[in-house]
Amino acid sequence: MTLTLTLVNYLDNNIVDDLESQVDTLASEQGRTPLDALPVAVAHTHRCSDAGNVPQGRSLEGWQLLRKAGQMIIDVHGHYTTAPPALEEWRNRQIRSLTDASVTADPSDLSISDDDLRDTIEKNQLAFMNERGVDWQIFSPRASYMAHHIGDFQTSSTWAAICNELCYRITQLFPDRFMAAAMLPQSPGVDPKTCLPEIDRCVNEYGMVAINLNPDPSGGSFNAPPLTDKSWYPIYAKMAEYDIPAMIHVSTACNPAFHTTGSYYINADTTAFMQFLTGDLFKDFPTIKFVIPHGGGAVPFHYGRYRGLAQELKKPPIPEHLFGNVFFDTCVYHQPGINLLTDVIPVENVLFASEMIGAVKGIDPETGHYFDDTKRYVLAAPISDEYKDQIFEKNARKVYPRINAIIDKAR
Amino acid sequence: MTLTLTLVNYLDNNIVDDLESQVDTLASEQGRTPLDALPVAVAHTHRCSDAGNVPQGRSLEGWQLLRKAGQMIIDVHGHYTTAPPALEEWRNRQIRSLTDASVTADPSDLSISDDDLRDTIEKNQLAFMNERGVDWQIFSPRASYMAHHIGDFQTSSTWAAICNELCYRITQLFPDRFMAAAMLPQSPGVDPKTCLPEIDRCVNEYGMVAINLNPDPSGGSFNAPPLTDKSWYPIYAKMAEYDIPAMIHVSTACNPAFHTTGSYYINADTTAFMQFLTGDLFKDFPTIKFVIPHGGGAVPFHYGRYRGLAQELKKPPIPEHLFGNVFFDTCVYHQPGINLLTDVIPVENVLFASEMIGAVKGIDPETGHYFDDTKRYVLAAPISDEYKDQIFEKNARKVYPRINAIIDKAR
Repeated sequence: MTLTLTLVNYLDNNIVDDLESQVDTLASEQGRTPLDALPVAVAHTHRCSDAGNVPQGRSLEGWQLLRKAGQMIIDVHGHYTTAPPALEEWRNRQIRSLTDASVTADPSDLSISDDDLRDTIEKNQLAFMNERGVDWQIFSPRASYMAHHIGDFQTSSTWAAICNELCYRITQLFPDRFMAAAMLPQSPGVDPKTCLPEIDRCVNEYGMVAINLNPDPSGGSFNAPPLTDKSWYPIYAKMAEYDIPAMIHVSTACNPAFHTTGSYYINADTTAFMQFLTGDLFKDFPTIKFVIPHGGGAVPFHYGRYRGLAQELKKPPIPEHLFGNVFFDTCVYHQPGINLLTDVIPVENVLFASEMIGAVKGIDPETGHYFDDTKRYVLAAPISDEYKDQIFEKNARKVYPRINAIIDKAR
Repeated sequence: MTLTLTLVNYLDNNIVDDLESQVDTLASEQGRTPLDALPVAVAHTHRCSDAGNVPQGRSLEGWQLLRKAGQMIIDVHGHYTTAPPALEEWRNRQIRSLTDASVTADPSDLSISDDDLRDTIEKNQLAFMNERGVDWQIFSPRASYMAHHIGDFQTSSTWAAICNELCYRITQLFPDRFMAAAMLPQSPGVDPKTCLPEIDRCVNEYGMVAINLNPDPSGGSFNAPPLTDKSWYPIYAKMAEYDIPAMIHVSTACNPAFHTTGSYYINADTTAFMQFLTGDLFKDFPTIKFVIPHGGGAVPFHYGRYRGLAQELKKPPIPEHLFGNVFFDTCVYHQPGINLLTDVIPVENVLFASEMIGAVKGIDPETGHYFDDTKRYVLAAPISDEYKDQIFEKNARKVYPRINAIIDKAR
């Protein structure tokens, strides 16, 4: 039992005793090694706690333990919402330069030191990750600031290059905690294939593991062709070539009908799913993968509607038609929502994510915990520990294959 | 026990025995009259059945029994999707007349007999209502055919008048089964107050009990002002004057990004809720009521997000801020969705509806029942029979106060 004791030496004695005896039992009854038995024992300790509530202290410790024992929690959806103010100041200058010839915005004017970057991460995302027991975050530029509707392709291209470079630098500063996904230099009405050089650069030079694809660069008019349209195909070919997934993610709404994080994001998620459902995109690209964030928008709540529509449209059942290629994250900020998500959507298609620090920053007065501490909801969902492990780690490793080498290297 | 026996004489003997003994017990233990005890006994019989599954035969019979005992199931959301083909032919002629001066479309050219109307209802909506045990449906013109984006105000005005008259005639042909809600002659960019004469006519001449309000007459550009904008106020003043609610309902999508029933409807629901959340409309109109159909779009699934956003936006908690005025229907076509809806949304704010015959017409191969047979899901939801009764009847009577006189008259 040396191994167990070494791992749990920061836990209180009762838990250590509990775990030790369970590891012993599992080892003798099931012929497991102590290392093999430990995660099961931890999960069991968690499972035996008060039903209906996450026994937070104990389960967090348990999962920290699991992490040490080789398991891992990967958050596939985080944005650099906490960048130094210099970034926003530069962007504002760039926007002014579009209408005021006396204003210039040269990327070389922007200077952000490593210390500044480190500081904004350590005090924010990393602090929460440590507090909550999250190992990795797949990190991309702030979604609401992509604002592809502003300016033209050149505007977006310069801006995307800057934002992607910052995320790359963060992966270098924290090489065992952050991996990066690229924003694209999309612009309304501009051919998506103009984004290919930035994808090449981000994958080849920056080692990025995914892209964020905006299905509505207009910021709320929804006037781009559906995602099944052939104009998007060059991006999909690149995704297939590099084996990188795309997260579907709009940016800030400039349509007063929509609230950016309250309705626009969710609507875009639902819309993208229905575009995939009505089309046959994955006949042309059988290997590419999309993550629909925010729990897939309205889809899990209306899953009967979507199953019924697939049937009426003479499509195969959704699992066969879409679930080899379309995945949902867990950015759903209450327990009943996560319970529904993990109940109706196949476990292979649910990936842990928090969008932290993002859409909803506050503390839920009903629970006393942050709304976006989605790990708590997944831990408390009525699903097996094996399923939780898939959601926390294994599915991400499959959908984002490039993360595996990075994780191995960091060990 | 004569009363009970008379009411249940079409049930099998075991159930009758069961009910009789429970009515006796309730009568003696709680001092109830047999008529008073009967619904409780029926509910109890239902409750004692196999957990997790709707004991369909028994519970349908049970509810038919409740109906006879004076309780009622009111479906607040049905459209005339089965109108005689002559209606669509007339509409197509009207649309052609907009671009072809040689085509005329005079409302007097359209002739649909009472027999035709009766036939389309008896074979469709009424057959399903009888089969499922639904007493009343609040019936309005086909939502996807409102198509407010076509033509101008005059086009919509003529079309709304025709469609509303047909619904009125159905309420006259089936005065104890259908009540009507009006579509409005909305047109993109046209002042909503142009709709007031049609509202007056539908309430005063046709006895209609509600309106359907389209928050996006463009058919998918979402370019109308938010529902909290003062341009909508004349309609809200009329709703207050007549004490009629509005169901928020877009029409067919003419934006290729959207699928009408798969994403556009749901997006509009979510969008409307968020508009109400960010605004303070109900300070100006404390008594008006809106029903957001399709279970409130994505709102219940993301209820944590909305609670968190309300907090960040410094609004009162949602129940206080919105739930005196905003209600959701049960058009959610699977059990987990209805369970979530009835779990997170206060029971006072959930109204039974099926949208039958509407968005999803097929049979769910997983259950063997129609997707839109939402009564089954409500019956099987893990909530008390008292809550079900609120959802099936009592909430509708509060949100649609004008239905009470119609129901009383039909008795």
